[in-house]
Amino acid sequence: MIELWRGGLCESLHFGHAVIADANGVVAAWGDPGAVIFPRSSCKMIQALPLVESGAADAHGLGGRQLALACASHNGARIHIEPVAAWLDGLGLAEADLRCGAHLPADPDERRRLICALESPCQIHNNCSGKHAGFLTLNRHLGAGPDYVDPDHPVQRAVRRAFEEVTGEEAAGWGIDGCSAPNFACSVAGLALAMARFARPGDGRRGQAQRRLVKAMIAHPELVAGEGRACTELMRAAGGRAVVKTGAEAVFVAILPERGLGVALKIADGGTRAAEAAITALLVHLGILAEGDPVVQRYLTGPLRNWRGLATGELRRAEGFPA
Amino acid sequence: MIELWRGGLCESLHFGHAVIADANGVVAAWGDPGAVIFPRSSCKMIQALPLVESGAADAHGLGGRQLALACASHNGARIHIEPVAAWLDGLGLAEADLRCGAHLPADPDERRRLICALESPCQIHNNCSGKHAGFLTLNRHLGAGPDYVDPDHPVQRAVRRAFEEVTGEEAAGWGIDGCSAPNFACSVAGLALAMARFARPGDGRRGQAQRRLVKAMIAHPELVAGEGRACTELMRAAGGRAVVKTGAEAVFVAILPERGLGVALKIADGGTRAAEAAITALLVHLGILAEGDPVVQRYLTGPLRNWRGLATGELRRAEGFPA
Repeated sequence: MIELWRGGLCESLHFGHAVIADANGVVAAWGDPGAVIFPRSSCKMIQALPLVESGAADAHGLGGRQLALACASHNGARIHIEPVAAWLDGLGLAEADLRCGAHLPADPDERRRLICALESPCQIHNNCSGKHAGFLTLNRHLGAGPDYVDPDHPVQRAVRRAFEEVTGEEAAGWGIDGCSAPNFACSVAGLALAMARFARPGDGRRGQAQRRLVKAMIAHPELVAGEGRACTELMRAAGGRAVVKTGAEAVFVAILPERGLGVALKIADGGTRAAEAAITALLVHLGILAEGDPVVQRYLTGPLRNWRGLATGELRRAEGFPA
Repeated sequence: MIELWRGGLCESLHFGHAVIADANGVVAAWGDPGAVIFPRSSCKMIQALPLVESGAADAHGLGGRQLALACASHNGARIHIEPVAAWLDGLGLAEADLRCGAHLPADPDERRRLICALESPCQIHNNCSGKHAGFLTLNRHLGAGPDYVDPDHPVQRAVRRAFEEVTGEEAAGWGIDGCSAPNFACSVAGLALAMARFARPGDGRRGQAQRRLVKAMIAHPELVAGEGRACTELMRAAGGRAVVKTGAEAVFVAILPERGLGVALKIADGGTRAAEAAITALLVHLGILAEGDPVVQRYLTGPLRNWRGLATGELRRAEGFPA
């Protein structure tokens, strides 16, 4: 799907699976559309559906910023951690109620602040803390116990139900995600179909929730990831015409409301650089981004430069991908 | 070659090529032994051959520590940068004479020091600065011009000659490496053959140089990479029975003097985690490491844990690799 070239030779290459779907099913596919994958964080907008559909979001007065954070894999910058902390506070909860674990944030300023203050990061810095704040909000609404990441907990049972409904598949299994929540497996085609349903939502409660989550992500690309991150930069370049979301191990999805299309892809080896290049290639292919856009150069057409700024190589679309 | 499993499903997988060779050629192979690759930093002991063979190393009184640094992709810790700075000083040269570019060091202490002091890293922090100090030493001996990374410069012509001789192949091309030096291409089998020649060196000037470089790397595993790095930890666990060296884009080589064997591998997608797992698997396969060794658990048998310490998955040897 994506190759790395250096000195006129193909140095490394990435295989993958990709599907473009509309609400009726597969429109185009590369690799194996039936390949079973873990969507990882790419399905956070699906995991947020019960939060909205249950009425929990409205009962707690959540706005677009909080819904965008619920769908985010954020950088842990101040713009991410301050609203999540306030959100927990509004629930009468604290950082210790989260179950996502702590890691150093990707945001360079907050990272530097912690390192130089010899402070440990907290769970609010975790890139999934917005999703977990959403889980806790749903949990408050359901009145269930504190272990909301248990796959048998009512929160996760609701997530699984929504996941199976929008992918049109019974989950092929589940694994424990980096943030300790269960992550359900589906085919690449099922994930693309789910995204197509977000792109062309119906009029019922499901459709209203999908429309609201898409609107929130499009309105706040800086909350969905952060400065310098592919999701944020690709969404900004798409100018409201696409939701773009990454997941660990090289998953990417896109929701294209204007076209009524959903996109899902997985690089087989889990290589993020190739997933970013492949989703960029598909957004160009679908007319969402122009080939000459700086963001396309950044994630796909290069060139790659070394520490002295010399051009050393480039990423290329493999023959037949996407056209 | 290497798979990542989560929740009972294979989430990601890595294809690759690997060869075990003795001085007569291929002993065992997986994938395509003829695949053409850039060895990147895995061939630094080859790039150091002209430094020793020319008499430059002796003329400048280089000891084992400097030779290990010439073969290193180091962490930029104090133990690496101080001797490189002293080495340059001894040549009457300075940081500005390097052509490797600057990047933040991997060593957490030195990295923290720079970040919190708002200091920029210098070229001596570059993981290749020892190799470049070696190039500059050879250059002083040859009396050639300052642009020692030009592929037509006498230093690089000498490197190419040594590279082609020990791999037994005419270079299939060259690219610009991350450190701006030319990197010559060869087959995986050619790289393994070169390592076998380091494992069983002859009596001439070439053999003496190979023996000296192997001895230096084995004596100073902490200089070849650094604390927490695979090369250093695998060499320590091998207890002097193996030289292990990584290269960017998922190349790994090993030199096994006792067995007279050389190993080379390349993960096709450039994924470092798989290259580390694959070289570990081959060192177990060859009886250099025990399956139960903590270093084997760290790089291969896992489990993988998330931010809360939960076991979320594991790396596995793909069927047929290595046995």
